Amino acid sequence: MANWPIHASFDGDMVMIGFGSIGKGSLPLILRHIAVDPKRVTVISPDDSGRPEAEALGVTFVKTAITPENLAATLDPLFTKPGGFLVNLSVEVSSLDLIRYAATKDALYIDTCIEPWPGGYTDPSLSPSERSNYALRETALALRAELGTDSPTAVLTHGANPGMVSHLVKQALLNLAKDLDVATDVPRTRAGWSALAERLGVKGIHIAERDTQVTGQPKPKDVFHNTWSIDGFISEGLQPTELGWGSFEGDLPFDGGEHAFGEKAAIYLNRPGCTTRVRTWTPAAGSIIGYLITHSEAISIADYFTIKNADGSLRYRPTCHYAYHPCDDAILSLHEMQGNGLEPQSRFRLLNDEIIQGMDELGVLLYGHAKNAYWYGSQLSIEEARELAPYQNATGLQVTSAVLAGMVWALENPRRGVVEPDEMDFDRVLEIQMPYLGPVIGQYSDWTPLKGREALFPEDVDRDEPWRFKNVIVR
Amino acid sequence: MANWPIHASFDGDMVMIGFGSIGKGSLPLILRHIAVDPKRVTVISPDDSGRPEAEALGVTFVKTAITPENLAATLDPLFTKPGGFLVNLSVEVSSLDLIRYAATKDALYIDTCIEPWPGGYTDPSLSPSERSNYALRETALALRAELGTDSPTAVLTHGANPGMVSHLVKQALLNLAKDLDVATDVPRTRAGWSALAERLGVKGIHIAERDTQVTGQPKPKDVFHNTWSIDGFISEGLQPTELGWGSFEGDLPFDGGEHAFGEKAAIYLNRPGCTTRVRTWTPAAGSIIGYLITHSEAISIADYFTIKNADGSLRYRPTCHYAYHPCDDAILSLHEMQGNGLEPQSRFRLLNDEIIQGMDELGVLLYGHAKNAYWYGSQLSIEEARELAPYQNATGLQVTSAVLAGMVWALENPRRGVVEPDEMDFDRVLEIQMPYLGPVIGQYSDWTPLKGREALFPEDVDRDEPWRFKNVIVR
Ligand SMILES: NC(=O)c1ccc[n+]([C@@H]2O[C@H](COP(=O)([O-])OP(=O)(O)OC[C@H]3O[C@@H](n4cnc5c(N)ncnc54)[C@H](O)[C@@H]3O)[C@@H](O)[C@H]2O)c1
Ligand SMILES: NC(=O)c1ccc[n+]([C@@H]2O[C@H](COP(=O)([O-])OP(=O)(O)OC[C@H]3O[C@@H](n4cnc5c(N)ncnc54)[C@H](O)[C@@H]3O)[C@@H](O)[C@H]2O)c1
Repeated sequence: MANWPIHASFDGDMVMIGFGSIGKGSLPLILRHIAVDPKRVTVISPDDSGRPEAEALGVTFVKTAITPENLAATLDPLFTKPGGFLVNLSVEVSSLDLIRYAATKDALYIDTCIEPWPGGYTDPSLSPSERSNYALRETALALRAELGTDSPTAVLTHGANPGMVSHLVKQALLNLAKDLDVATDVPRTRAGWSALAERLGVKGIHIAERDTQVTGQPKPKDVFHNTWSIDGFISEGLQPTELGWGSFEGDLPFDGGEHAFGEKAAIYLNRPGCTTRVRTWTPAAGSIIGYLITHSEAISIADYFTIKNADGSLRYRPTCHYAYHPCDDAILSLHEMQGNGLEPQSRFRLLNDEIIQGMDELGVLLYGHAKNAYWYGSQLSIEEARELAPYQNATGLQVTSAVLAGMVWALENPRRGVVEPDEMDFDRVLEIQMPYLGPVIGQYSDWTPLKGREALFPEDVDRDEPWRFKNVIVR
Repeated sequence: MANWPIHASFDGDMVMIGFGSIGKGSLPLILRHIAVDPKRVTVISPDDSGRPEAEALGVTFVKTAITPENLAATLDPLFTKPGGFLVNLSVEVSSLDLIRYAATKDALYIDTCIEPWPGGYTDPSLSPSERSNYALRETALALRAELGTDSPTAVLTHGANPGMVSHLVKQALLNLAKDLDVATDVPRTRAGWSALAERLGVKGIHIAERDTQVTGQPKPKDVFHNTWSIDGFISEGLQPTELGWGSFEGDLPFDGGEHAFGEKAAIYLNRPGCTTRVRTWTPAAGSIIGYLITHSEAISIADYFTIKNADGSLRYRPTCHYAYHPCDDAILSLHEMQGNGLEPQSRFRLLNDEIIQGMDELGVLLYGHAKNAYWYGSQLSIEEARELAPYQNATGLQVTSAVLAGMVWALENPRRGVVEPDEMDFDRVLEIQMPYLGPVIGQYSDWTPLKGREALFPEDVDRDEPWRFKNVIVR
């Protein structure tokens, strides 16, 4: 692609907070596809590690760590007029406080994760329910109500997942409808989408990912390796396991808990996600074990597709959760960290230039319908990612292209208030992302989580309903 | 060491069955330390992969797979007179049938594992109890009774573990007695050793191993990597989890089972060892998670140290089990295999020349005494292993030096019938092995399996007795 399409133009102030793997990867894509003067763009990061990349792109680099105390003082001089854009790609800065701030400046906002201030994920004085993504999302929904639906658009959690996967679910439902000969328009409402999912008999959805990116160097002791933020991964890995809890499930898991507030589309388990393993399937990897790391899409998708009866009781909801097989070095890192009583390693290494091969296979597995299971998603290789965009691996590009697409959508829909990915136009977002996703394929499978079970030992499995979470979780 | 000591001489026929990682590594050590004419040595292996190494050492190579049908016909011509030595380093050949055969030829015998004929480990028509190492050991003990105690010596399971670790336990007990100011002679009887262990307050023993050997190439999909027999590892990994069950333990684990026969020093869990993880500790690795793979030493050590009351009831027994952190590539291989419904990979790769660094840290962790925990064992690096002997990695040399030492002991004690490592002279065996083990160190630790527990989530732990297996197993 010599001639990159310009999707939108922007003449306000753009401030990017955080310039790690996602920030560094997003900036060149933004400048490539959004007509904006780099002089109006500022990057804020607490260390100088990204200064050369930022300055090479002609943007201003400010070395500051945002804190509750300096937030306004740091940002005020940068937002010189209404209609700016606050792009939050940091860790350890409260998303909620930034959304609130952006609203006061009449600025658009986007992030890829609802972050609390430092320690919020692992504050032992909070209950697991209070430390959950469910609780973080409830505070964001409360803020949405408070700010109102014609406040400047603030796009929540719009990376690959959470983010893109909500759009993949909708495309997958349409593909499934076609293959099952179920006539449907493209729904344009929440009610329309949930009715379609119910009609198709979708019992649940895994966000099923296998990252096969590897390096030529063995992981040393006491270093956590991953293909994206290690801070981010450890934080969410130490949050409780969380999943959208489908209407077909039955009893709660033995260590499961229900929240005492909100819509209750999701439950949590009384243990961290980085020790919770689940069975899943992707086309290239086949039958694998991933980690059930909590993610807001597990909650928002389950909530979005919920159908209530007239009396308020639950009629339909798909189960939804992440099933993440990170890169092999991250598997070893998690194993090491769990072995050390969940104490994180003393050093972190974000793998990028040292990657020699592999891909990030990231998609949605819709299961329990007449064709059993259907995976739809991106198989982006490291080689293709490197050809398409600088400063990132395959994992990064799936996220940064979603950041770009979310920003374009916000520019096109500037007064929608706080929105989740599920409420955006899936087809517009995917259209923008598609050139960056490598092969995007759909594949059916006869795999179920009962595959290979009880060959040698009795197990407590539910043979009547292969897809129940009880069969999916690894004990 | 330019001048290798000759520990014994032998003028009979020596037949080695199996010439994989352990066979190839043992042969040069045998020829180095036992005065034997290579022309009287025959290696039997079903494929030609080891022929060059065998012939370079001047021994005869016979390409045959031993089966129940051809066993006698293949071996008869090789045992030309009484007083031979049958060295069994194969997989999938019945140890019991070979011991029986050796007895008819008045030949000595050694192996490193009690193997059944193919399929014996994973025959779904057998109950888990019947597929256990406990059951295999019981058949060996029955054979011991049948053959009598002055039949030719047949050394059972004498590799590193099972094997060497039984001797390390005894040396560790003596070291611990010294450090606890407990006066003792060196016991020379089973009653003496078990009384010493009880007096020292040893509640249990982990065979605690961390293999850090790594290659410079990432593990490909669908290939099982390990530093020793992959056939062997998968076989024992699919057997039930088994452990010597200590007198301090209390209730059986929820999926635990008691055998209906034998001494009942050990129990099993209704699940394969390759999916059972346990917390343990080694000096260089620190706090780690290993796999509780079944091994005969877990049973024989617990049995050997058992003390009964006069009325036959149990007075003292240590818990004993393996806690094995194999090399990182094997961790990934196990994860992949479990992800594929315990279906083994289609290709196996035994890592040897491609190893670029690492060591095998293999020892015994004696726990629950006045100084909490004491690890005693070998920290053999790949570099040192390569300097010491050809055709093997660090893991191999710990095993092959034990094979050598066991053979020397058998030559020195030729009419002891079927013996387990625990019944041999620990100091003589260790003396022979010591030059091949790298640093052999003892280290105390304040680690317990409660380290880091319940920091963020409630867990079902036993705070009264930190060392109970309930706290050790990872759920
Ligand atoms: N939705 C998705 O698909 C997805 C995928 C990857 C990452 N993420 C999220 O994106 C965020 C960034 O990920 P990443 O891989 O770039 O992380 P990273 O760790 O590589 O970078 C984080 C950045 O935040 C900066 N930062 C830390 N504290 C700060 C502070 N007080 N003020 C300003 N900046 C601060 C760091 O210096 C760094 O530049 C994380 O929240 C992560 O969870 C989402
Ligand atoms: N106690 C210990 O510390 C210890 C350690 C490592 C291995 N072992 C045991 O030692 C044995 C060998 O281990 P390895 O790493 O050398 O295994 P390996 O897989 O490298 O080699 C096994 C050998 O047995 C041969 N074999 C297979 N079927 C045969 C048959 N029907 N007749 C004759 N030979 C046959 C194979 O061809 C190969 O040469 C295994 O039983 C293993 O469990 C014990």
